[in-house]
Amino acid sequence: MSEILLDSQAFFHNLTYISKYLHTHSTSTKLALVLKDNAYGHGLREIASLAREFGVQDVFVKTYDEAQVVREFFSSITILYGEPKGALAPNMAIAINNKEILHSLTFGSKVELKVNTGMNRNGINPSELEEYITLITQNGLQLFGVFTHNGYGDDLGNDFKIGCENFENIKTAVLHICKKLGIEKPRFHGLNSSGTLRSQTITDDLVRVGIGAYGYLQSDATPQIAHALKPVASLWADRISSKILPKGTKIGYGGKSVLQEESMVSTYDIGYGDGFPRINEHTKLYTACGKRILPRTSMDCFSCVSDAPRICVFNNVMPIAQAFNTISYEVLTHLSPFIKRTIVRK
Amino acid sequence: MSEILLDSQAFFHNLTYISKYLHTHSTSTKLALVLKDNAYGHGLREIASLAREFGVQDVFVKTYDEAQVVREFFSSITILYGEPKGALAPNMAIAINNKEILHSLTFGSKVELKVNTGMNRNGINPSELEEYITLITQNGLQLFGVFTHNGYGDDLGNDFKIGCENFENIKTAVLHICKKLGIEKPRFHGLNSSGTLRSQTITDDLVRVGIGAYGYLQSDATPQIAHALKPVASLWADRISSKILPKGTKIGYGGKSVLQEESMVSTYDIGYGDGFPRINEHTKLYTACGKRILPRTSMDCFSCVSDAPRICVFNNVMPIAQAFNTISYEVLTHLSPFIKRTIVRK
Repeated sequence: MSEILLDSQAFFHNLTYISKYLHTHSTSTKLALVLKDNAYGHGLREIASLAREFGVQDVFVKTYDEAQVVREFFSSITILYGEPKGALAPNMAIAINNKEILHSLTFGSKVELKVNTGMNRNGINPSELEEYITLITQNGLQLFGVFTHNGYGDDLGNDFKIGCENFENIKTAVLHICKKLGIEKPRFHGLNSSGTLRSQTITDDLVRVGIGAYGYLQSDATPQIAHALKPVASLWADRISSKILPKGTKIGYGGKSVLQEESMVSTYDIGYGDGFPRINEHTKLYTACGKRILPRTSMDCFSCVSDAPRICVFNNVMPIAQAFNTISYEVLTHLSPFIKRTIVRK
Repeated sequence: MSEILLDSQAFFHNLTYISKYLHTHSTSTKLALVLKDNAYGHGLREIASLAREFGVQDVFVKTYDEAQVVREFFSSITILYGEPKGALAPNMAIAINNKEILHSLTFGSKVELKVNTGMNRNGINPSELEEYITLITQNGLQLFGVFTHNGYGDDLGNDFKIGCENFENIKTAVLHICKKLGIEKPRFHGLNSSGTLRSQTITDDLVRVGIGAYGYLQSDATPQIAHALKPVASLWADRISSKILPKGTKIGYGGKSVLQEESMVSTYDIGYGDGFPRINEHTKLYTACGKRILPRTSMDCFSCVSDAPRICVFNNVMPIAQAFNTISYEVLTHLSPFIKRTIVRK
């Protein structure tokens, strides 16, 4: 059956690259890993085990369920979305985007307050900081962190810089409020992979590295860094069936692929039902070894002029993302969690 | 958190519609349900429980793992892909597409032999029938079924008819071989939803209904039938955060959405990390209540000019499939299994 291989060496290389960058561009900022959405489609449990091995202590997950999977692995696990289904373990915190959730948390729960610095998406307004921190304190919750998402890290223009300045002002305001309320200073973080790797001086307590750890960076601001990172995941499909078919044979739905000569054609066990994009007759896409994936692909398989028992569908997801006018993140996160993940050590 | 609601009435309506069609267009053909790929993204366990309630006895799943989930629910469960990880339960069968698998099955296992009738994808060649059936018998396996996939059910032209004729010839040949080898006649099936609903006289033992049961049919051959079916799944997202933003505010990645007037904007907890397509500035897409999903959408959320606490992202997936130049199947099967599924009874 199909399989996603995880290149441990590539993963450690990426984390090392970013750690070294932090060493020379920050005071003592820690690298935290974003594990949300099944570790960007790579497999939550597998990537978590590699991250722990590397020494990562702080991670971010999407849901309470994801936090449960990795609860034994890290010093701090922050849940970015939703409400906890039960009490939070001592090493867990939950992100705060609205007031309602504050009333549903049990006494002593750790929270990280998200603040809007220009994405105008999630997070509270900076003007609400004192109100929220006061409420958090009154509800017996622990203000573990204050953070933002500067989503302009990939873009040229001034928005990234404005977001950074906004967060610096927020940090100053938070320190003032904490002093006034007599509570401890929370940890601060605002940068993702691209934001980190374009910053000359980082003063936050940690950075949240997601896509960079998995080997990709689609940044207009630092295009050269993408080449320094190595894709971690490769997708492999196994042969279901092979046959020699004559010239002129139509293959698959709609009969859109027609053989130009007698060929050995095989089907392989990856389809759009596995979360891989569906390929129709308007898209030319090739496996890692250059075989065309014959359109139209099916829910559970694709055809190829090949008789290899196993074929590498991709070892770099960028050509696929480009063919579908999207970004690496979408192709990766769509990969079905039912595909087996296997860590490869070289 | 986001949720997929399953309309039980719509599901029963679709199965009733197809059952009535079978009643008037076949001898005594049974309706079997295709549950593969997490029941086309609807939720395997939930759809299986509804199907059992309706009286469905025969189902098709993708993998051994899927079969395990529904093992208590049905009289017959056929695994379409891969090899079993353990012994097959007495109510399970496995599809045969190649010779290798025949040697890995335990004595007495039920198999269904897949034969190619024109898709030129999976399945053995008709000329190999006797060789395979002999091997099956020699290996102590039980020939439970012989089937094909006539994938031309949606298309105009002659291919569908040719596929049907090919399968009739295969049935005749199989009966001859079985008589010769002294084994019982297997069950025969070759039609999917669209193939069923365009056939005037069905003589197979069962039809494999997939997409039609879930309320969709994209068939050039029977376009009117699509309107008779009702979509089963609707996708709902919950509000994460709301804010009043001034005219001119840029929202989300790349700042591609700019408010034309002061607006109440909320984020909702569905993103492309949930398997929903990523929406960029080149695509106009609207929620079920007509609110534009503001590009670019994020991995875990989208923004909307709305303050509703919960929003219906879709109750019919066709506009989304059309916007992405694909078919309903792809959008549905990509929906993350981590989204909660809930059966709704009216």
